[in-house]
Amino acid sequence: MTRHDARLLALDWGTSSLRAFLLDADGQVLQQRAAARGIGQLAEPGPAGFEQALAEIAGDWLRERPGLPVVAGGMVGSAQGWREAPYVPCPADVNRLAASAASVHSELAGNVLLAPGLVCAAAAGDGLPDVMRGEEIQIAGALHGRPDWARACHVVLPGTHGKWAQVRAGAVLGFRTYMTGELFALLCRHSLLGRLMPADGSTGEPADHAAGFTLGLEQAGRSAPGDLAHQIFATRTLGLQLDRQLAPHALADYLSGLLIGHEVVSGLAHLRALDDAPGTLPLLLVGDAELCTRYARALTHFGHPATAQTGNTAPLGLYHFALAAGLLGAPR
Amino acid sequence: MTRHDARLLALDWGTSSLRAFLLDADGQVLQQRAAARGIGQLAEPGPAGFEQALAEIAGDWLRERPGLPVVAGGMVGSAQGWREAPYVPCPADVNRLAASAASVHSELAGNVLLAPGLVCAAAAGDGLPDVMRGEEIQIAGALHGRPDWARACHVVLPGTHGKWAQVRAGAVLGFRTYMTGELFALLCRHSLLGRLMPADGSTGEPADHAAGFTLGLEQAGRSAPGDLAHQIFATRTLGLQLDRQLAPHALADYLSGLLIGHEVVSGLAHLRALDDAPGTLPLLLVGDAELCTRYARALTHFGHPATAQTGNTAPLGLYHFALAAGLLGAPR
Repeated sequence: MTRHDARLLALDWGTSSLRAFLLDADGQVLQQRAAARGIGQLAEPGPAGFEQALAEIAGDWLRERPGLPVVAGGMVGSAQGWREAPYVPCPADVNRLAASAASVHSELAGNVLLAPGLVCAAAAGDGLPDVMRGEEIQIAGALHGRPDWARACHVVLPGTHGKWAQVRAGAVLGFRTYMTGELFALLCRHSLLGRLMPADGSTGEPADHAAGFTLGLEQAGRSAPGDLAHQIFATRTLGLQLDRQLAPHALADYLSGLLIGHEVVSGLAHLRALDDAPGTLPLLLVGDAELCTRYARALTHFGHPATAQTGNTAPLGLYHFALAAGLLGAPR
Repeated sequence: MTRHDARLLALDWGTSSLRAFLLDADGQVLQQRAAARGIGQLAEPGPAGFEQALAEIAGDWLRERPGLPVVAGGMVGSAQGWREAPYVPCPADVNRLAASAASVHSELAGNVLLAPGLVCAAAAGDGLPDVMRGEEIQIAGALHGRPDWARACHVVLPGTHGKWAQVRAGAVLGFRTYMTGELFALLCRHSLLGRLMPADGSTGEPADHAAGFTLGLEQAGRSAPGDLAHQIFATRTLGLQLDRQLAPHALADYLSGLLIGHEVVSGLAHLRALDDAPGTLPLLLVGDAELCTRYARALTHFGHPATAQTGNTAPLGLYHFALAAGLLGAPR
């Protein structure tokens, strides 16, 4: 077996999609595939649906490599998943995830190790419980091979349910979820506001988009508690003929800037309250490049630029998880 | 003609529904009807659709009373309505509404006088323009015959797009819209959160509902700018088995308390910033009784109880508008 032989099959298995990665001994991605086979999109209910989706996406890989270890993270380990890997309380590092993993038997793959999610309560500071599932693996990926970040940092993972996580000594100490992405999608798709935006997806000058986004950030920066529902309505009035401050194709950008701005104002305030020396710790942005770029602009706007921005770290996180579970031999 | 003869047909004509009221010389409602014939629900496009809807709901009334004056308020006067009655800038009282009314010819009814909406910019204090259409008539109704309120008060009109209006000398000086009702509906109907709520509409103990609503208010009271998207997500975690602080049938109440609480925190802060002697002016709640009762609880929770709560004041507002337009003879 050479250095670049496949040593691990890693599955990033969410609600809507399934991504499979063949990784080598160093965690490098050798091959990858994706399918619309999230746990909410299986062809049949129960374990057979999971087995079938695995066979579809990676049957050939597994048949060619008997005994290849398989790990999976994301909603596949939820109560609606293949088997539940219950939430682990914070603080938790990747070793704790591995020790708390669930395993499920696959006819094709043998044992599949499922990563648990995380739950935190007190650390959130507001008495509200919070949960993540999938992002803990992305965080493990972001920290892998970066002891400087693992020592102490903040990780921001924008998305449908974006997360702001506080990392100390390699462990997630606490985190807060923001439903920013889902709110944005709901407002664009189902609200009055969506009807004001161009249905044909036509776009205007890049300068208009930047102006809309910046106007949203500015409003967020000016907001007092509770103002959001008022500022959201302004998406309508700003686009009306009577006071055309924004062209129709810039309204979605205003709303994006407003909602991301609100999240960043709140997230930074919370982060500064947690830190002994506010602003000195690395702040990592992890996820979709275009969305992270919007967050990077918002972070800069509010005086706290991101230290680094990385794409999907789930494959490396699953590798890190498999290492911690001893599936790749002695820890490297 | 006796005192209780019909002297006015008043139409409260919104996006989804059409309500018709026969009023006497004092503005008392003699008869009323409602139909699902809002301007978005007409049987045919263009003026014919409006004519037909009017004939359906009030054809017999109008044929029996040739020459009966007809007034209408709400979306019927919007750009998508029967004829546009453009927004009038604040400050504006009911005389200004009457002077700026549009009129449209109906074969059945003769002239129909359409009330304009209101627009305000500077008074909102945040540089965001704002508009209302229909609520200005409800405000005129709430103030009719109440010179003490008309002198100076605040009017809160909860709803899909709730309004907080500042009244001085009978005129609306400025106002702010909150998209609270639409946000609540979007989150219950289309988001992840709605799937956690009982689909069969089953309800639990009243005490659970009160507890959920109060927990939402408390979170709103504790919020820093931008926290809303985080607190909304907590609707999910509070209902999870792992930390069952709220039963499934109380989740909608938490969300209701959270969103109404945010609006009230923001609205009261703005209102206090406007007043010379904060807290001394009457605060009126106008609209749906159940919703107003929720707002009344929230206002009390945040230390500023409502002075009065009234139901739909649109009929009296349209009467006030017709009086101001001289449709009922000399002003009484």
